[in-house]
Amino acid sequence: MKARVHVMLKDGVLDPQGAAVKHALGALGFAGVNDVRQGKVIELDLAEGTTEAQVGEMCEKLLANMVIESYRIDFL
Amino acid sequence: MKARVHVMLKDGVLDPQGAAVKHALGALGFAGVNDVRQGKVIELDLAEGTTEAQVGEMCEKLLANMVIESYRIDFL
Repeated sequence: MKARVHVMLKDGVLDPQGAAVKHALGALGFAGVNDVRQGKVIELDLAEGTTEAQVGEMCEKLLANMVIESYRIDFL
Repeated sequence: MKARVHVMLKDGVLDPQGAAVKHALGALGFAGVNDVRQGKVIELDLAEGTTEAQVGEMCEKLLANMVIESYRIDFL
């Protein structure tokens, strides 16, 4: 089974990578880009029967820094 | 309007970040993690009327390295 985890900076946390991408898109001539936020996506190939709670524990222990990041789990 | 772009390394391209995450999950005692691939997710807040072709151009010019990465665009 596969799971996809999105890890994004929480709202209100400064995102310098996103700001850099926004600036670079403007410099390349792309108009109408109001905001950019960049995060991580982690695709996990897991043994059958792994629960969402177990994946949540992986996120909280390793994948996300819960002080500044939030995560979302999708099973595929 | 919002668009979400996923940028992942192409199959067959070595993913050291994913390998490091897999190793670390094993070291933390999580069994049953067969494979991990890590990529980027970019959330764009765009002016109304921006087309998928325009977002594709952003990906090919800036967001993805087309030699080793592939991208997927989802409008939210």
